[in-house]
Amino acid sequence: MIIQLDKNISTTALAELKHNLEAIQYKYNPVTTQFQDYLVAIGKTDFDIRKIGQLEGVKDIHRVSDGYKLVSKKWKVQDTVIDLGDAVKIGTGHFSIMAGPCSIENEAQIEDTVAHLVKNNIKIMRGGVYKPRSSPYSFRGLGIDGLKLFYKHCRANGIKIITEVMQVSQIEPMLDYVDILQVGARNSLNFNLLDALGQVDKPVLLKRGISGTIEELLSAAEYIFSNGNERIMLCERGIRSFEKSYRNTLDLNAIPILKAKSHLPVIVDPSHGIGIRKHVEAMSLAGIMAGADGLIVEVHSQPEKAFSDGQQTLNFMEAERLYQRSLQTFDLREQL
Amino acid sequence: MIIQLDKNISTTALAELKHNLEAIQYKYNPVTTQFQDYLVAIGKTDFDIRKIGQLEGVKDIHRVSDGYKLVSKKWKVQDTVIDLGDAVKIGTGHFSIMAGPCSIENEAQIEDTVAHLVKNNIKIMRGGVYKPRSSPYSFRGLGIDGLKLFYKHCRANGIKIITEVMQVSQIEPMLDYVDILQVGARNSLNFNLLDALGQVDKPVLLKRGISGTIEELLSAAEYIFSNGNERIMLCERGIRSFEKSYRNTLDLNAIPILKAKSHLPVIVDPSHGIGIRKHVEAMSLAGIMAGADGLIVEVHSQPEKAFSDGQQTLNFMEAERLYQRSLQTFDLREQL
Amino acid sequence: MIIQLDKNISTTALAELKHNLEAIQYKYNPVTTQFQDYLVAIGKTDFDIRKIGQLEGVKDIHRVSDGYKLVSKKWKVQDTVIDLGDAVKIGTGHFSIMAGPCSIENEAQIEDTVAHLVKNNIKIMRGGVYKPRSSPYSFRGLGIDGLKLFYKHCRANGIKIITEVMQVSQIEPMLDYVDILQVGARNSLNFNLLDALGQVDKPVLLKRGISGTIEELLSAAEYIFSNGNERIMLCERGIRSFEKSYRNTLDLNAIPILKAKSHLPVIVDPSHGIGIRKHVEAMSLAGIMAGADGLIVEVHSQPEKAFSDGQQTLNFMEAERLYQRSLQTFDLREQL
Amino acid sequence: MIIQLDKNISTTALAELKHNLEAIQYKYNPVTTQFQDYLVAIGKTDFDIRKIGQLEGVKDIHRVSDGYKLVSKKWKVQDTVIDLGDAVKIGTGHFSIMAGPCSIENEAQIEDTVAHLVKNNIKIMRGGVYKPRSSPYSFRGLGIDGLKLFYKHCRANGIKIITEVMQVSQIEPMLDYVDILQVGARNSLNFNLLDALGQVDKPVLLKRGISGTIEELLSAAEYIFSNGNERIMLCERGIRSFEKSYRNTLDLNAIPILKAKSHLPVIVDPSHGIGIRKHVEAMSLAGIMAGADGLIVEVHSQPEKAFSDGQQTLNFMEAERLYQRSLQTFDLREQL
Repeated sequence: MIIQLDKNISTTALAELKHNLEAIQYKYNPVTTQFQDYLVAIGKTDFDIRKIGQLEGVKDIHRVSDGYKLVSKKWKVQDTVIDLGDAVKIGTGHFSIMAGPCSIENEAQIEDTVAHLVKNNIKIMRGGVYKPRSSPYSFRGLGIDGLKLFYKHCRANGIKIITEVMQVSQIEPMLDYVDILQVGARNSLNFNLLDALGQVDKPVLLKRGISGTIEELLSAAEYIFSNGNERIMLCERGIRSFEKSYRNTLDLNAIPILKAKSHLPVIVDPSHGIGIRKHVEAMSLAGIMAGADGLIVEVHSQPEKAFSDGQQTLNFMEAERLYQRSLQTFDLREQL
Repeated sequence: MIIQLDKNISTTALAELKHNLEAIQYKYNPVTTQFQDYLVAIGKTDFDIRKIGQLEGVKDIHRVSDGYKLVSKKWKVQDTVIDLGDAVKIGTGHFSIMAGPCSIENEAQIEDTVAHLVKNNIKIMRGGVYKPRSSPYSFRGLGIDGLKLFYKHCRANGIKIITEVMQVSQIEPMLDYVDILQVGARNSLNFNLLDALGQVDKPVLLKRGISGTIEELLSAAEYIFSNGNERIMLCERGIRSFEKSYRNTLDLNAIPILKAKSHLPVIVDPSHGIGIRKHVEAMSLAGIMAGADGLIVEVHSQPEKAFSDGQQTLNFMEAERLYQRSLQTFDLREQL
Repeated sequence: MIIQLDKNISTTALAELKHNLEAIQYKYNPVTTQFQDYLVAIGKTDFDIRKIGQLEGVKDIHRVSDGYKLVSKKWKVQDTVIDLGDAVKIGTGHFSIMAGPCSIENEAQIEDTVAHLVKNNIKIMRGGVYKPRSSPYSFRGLGIDGLKLFYKHCRANGIKIITEVMQVSQIEPMLDYVDILQVGARNSLNFNLLDALGQVDKPVLLKRGISGTIEELLSAAEYIFSNGNERIMLCERGIRSFEKSYRNTLDLNAIPILKAKSHLPVIVDPSHGIGIRKHVEAMSLAGIMAGADGLIVEVHSQPEKAFSDGQQTLNFMEAERLYQRSLQTFDLREQL
Repeated sequence: MIIQLDKNISTTALAELKHNLEAIQYKYNPVTTQFQDYLVAIGKTDFDIRKIGQLEGVKDIHRVSDGYKLVSKKWKVQDTVIDLGDAVKIGTGHFSIMAGPCSIENEAQIEDTVAHLVKNNIKIMRGGVYKPRSSPYSFRGLGIDGLKLFYKHCRANGIKIITEVMQVSQIEPMLDYVDILQVGARNSLNFNLLDALGQVDKPVLLKRGISGTIEELLSAAEYIFSNGNERIMLCERGIRSFEKSYRNTLDLNAIPILKAKSHLPVIVDPSHGIGIRKHVEAMSLAGIMAGADGLIVEVHSQPEKAFSDGQQTLNFMEAERLYQRSLQTFDLREQL
């Protein structure tokens, strides 16, 4: 059960509300976000929802039978749209493209990419400065200094930044230089990281785990929301299966299901999904028709020289074609 | 290696060709289809392909490094288009919809469905008369009598028929009443059935196995082709994964990969894929943008009363919307 | 619900029984096996089981809530033991080893293997004469002539034969030359083959599908039993997963679960399971401790020269060690 | 390539060695552990290994072609045995049982369990004080205070403690109260946590990811080792598959493969594996015959009242039977 509270609920009214919940053996979790105050109440007793809904200080009340509560569409029918400022919005009714290299490599690469994005009117640049790598001996990213460089050029050109955060201690130093914090597939069940990201006022893009269920993805988002951060995007990036003729099984089934179950925006990552450069466009357009609110794609001026993921990275010409076709496809979907 | 032979290759020339293949330790399999004569030669020795290509009676010659040979795009760059007659064609450049119930139930149901298809200009009706069922105690279909009824109404209305064949002994009696024979996911590696279907001059729609790899699907098609039948369609219908919030993981990644590897048409089955009625449309449109040549969808006048698969079957109104949107999406794809 | 009938139930009593089932809206399927007559009744109404149990001609009656009925342990608590004659028995309390090559290749190979088995007191020889192969161009086995050779040498030495049957039309010609008919993983949902094997009085070893669920395996066995053949063995042979450091994920979890759910014997195939020669022994012994009633293993005098599956086939020395250790492990398990 | 260095290698000799590696374009990573100094060198050039092996200060040198290096058996043929003190050793030749509740709940529960372990001569107690939970609203463990209680009773009774650590900031406060730090399946690719655990002189038990490959597990262990900690155990706890008749697919195939590829001890977790109380024993004994060096099992005085995982937790009587049978099985394995 989700109880939305009046901003100015009195101490007495709150106590009375909690008393009523205790009386029906419900546990409650107070949640305060950027936008609102809630009580998330969990229990099994049957009761008259109107009785609680009519209490002083209660703005609205909804039953939510799912395991996840605050991210469910059962209480919030209107989809969440995340406003990054400067008219950059993510969510239903908008279409977003986040493009850039797998790893931030050096200043020239940032400049090239920013110029490419500006030319194509793409508003959000992706690029990793902390890289999760299978081997401890691989390149692990340029770190905070790379991020500052990344920020300098994006800021100067009106481009928003999305980049991955791997651990709690990285959050604070990154905050001034990012617009969206990304949680990678390997950290999708790193609950301490999720808790911490819930206490930050930056949007979070949360990738589905390498073999994460849709239920787990929504529960991970619940961690962030219940800690106070409502600005969450869900990202399908491919799951692990027996099939080996591509990198990951991009699971487009997840798109309509996530859109039906949750009010949060859903982004598709076709690059890590199919993982084969020449098929990234087909999977992107398919993802859009499946209902995605945006794409996150890997783009590099010279994919064959990229530090990582070159085999799935588009060059600038391929990327331009993708941007145009994506918009045409999105337009068709909105008109249908 | 695929060697296309002249239709009138002389016995001497053929003997000479075989002699040359033996000399380089290649095994060869003669293949005669509706359209052409081939030798499929397999071996490891390195040799000068021109030497064999220039022999008398050799029309063309191609190296094919894949495990499957005749269904590979490596020798046949121009995609296969299957002509069912009456201007009904399946393959690149055409868009096909096959619609109808999971099971043929009775004459009234056939009549209703045919009227619905005629109204919407859909040219191919699906419907099972032999049903593979998990339990031996479930309804197993109306059999050959059901097929004759099915045929009577379709024939009278210019509708083509696709229906599943489950075993070799069913093929012969079915031949006069079908336009396309379908091999179901459970029989995708039933090699004796595939052999037999290769000896028949009817198009075959071959579904990917329940957890079949893309390589296995192409090898299964090779069974049919190498037995003499070139008219094969490949069908993605969802694979088995750990995810349980939908029926099967419709693997749209398979679409661009199959289109790149093979010259055969590729059809998507969103009904068995995601398996949830309200999401069938999204997955259909996504499949089209991924590059599919057609859809096979379950449609019923009253899905909630269907003998089987009701939860994933569209009613006529939903189906009409799907047909229209599918065509609009296909049109966009062709214009991009 | 399973109703065991008296062998001499009168027509009147049978009619009365059916009448009673119809009265409570139950459908019934008469099943006559080598051993007994049954009615398998399926329905949803609640009713007093004693009322039917006390009818004339009813020997025993049991509710079975599983989807599969006759193969369930819910009505037949005492495990099935299959008697092949000559004191060769398979099932709880006995331990069986079936060993031999993947494919029957020639007479010398049969003679070598038979001598090896006789020396080690192994009573059942495996060997394929019909081989399911991914590619239509691969060796597909020696067929019925190979089987006759196989039979000649086994018969002369008191060895029983297990070999794979791939299609209905092969059954009849094979019957005189086999002791156990094997259904391979690719045919585990070939329902027509299962139906036909239910009408034969030969034991059947049924392999779990390549990605078959335990429920599907039991339902496949139900096909055989409900057609009249009670002598069925279940075989775990590895499932398909994302892991690629071995051939298949031999799923030993299936062993205790199958033994708890069903009264049928359970055999483990470690050769196709892990698929790596040096690890076959470890997985065999593990399978025994998990509760298996026997092993089916690939053995060849010269694995490196085997026509197929050499990488997972034991040589005679390795096999002898396996036989001894398997028996020691089985002895320990029985004493615990 | 792994180069073991003399403890007293001179600065000149080290410089000379590095110079030689640079000359053949090898990158090197200095690694200093509790026991030894290494250079892990990575490159592709072919060279004469003896030339480097004979340099001053080089104790030994080995080529290791695997992606993981220090945890590979290719350079360290003798298996790692981890000594916890008081004659408690883990690794080849020893058999270890770690038993206890999923979660530490209260002092009475600890006392009960410790008494049970002492009675059965079990030397290591498991119990979670930080619990990774799908829902943010579930019980997350008693934290550091619970650990101190846990420690008090174990210490007093000569029992070693293994417990899960979820994030870097927890390590330091836990150090004085644990004997083994456990990394859970959800954190198996949390590289920052692995880095940090490499800098601590406590043994680490590393669980395979929920759908982690064997290669990923070994690479995760490489993170810990290359940061300086050689005392690592690998733990198989079940992977995610399509099968739903048990909790996870306990992958016993991983046991012989890990033992063949790595010198590290391998532990099996049958409780999270099959996840069904009555089948835990069968999977434990199977795991032992597959080659495991030990078990980690969930045990509780009243499983039905446990805060978490009750359905897979043994009661004390079941646990005693398991301990005895495990030892008998281990004894047989060692004698074979």
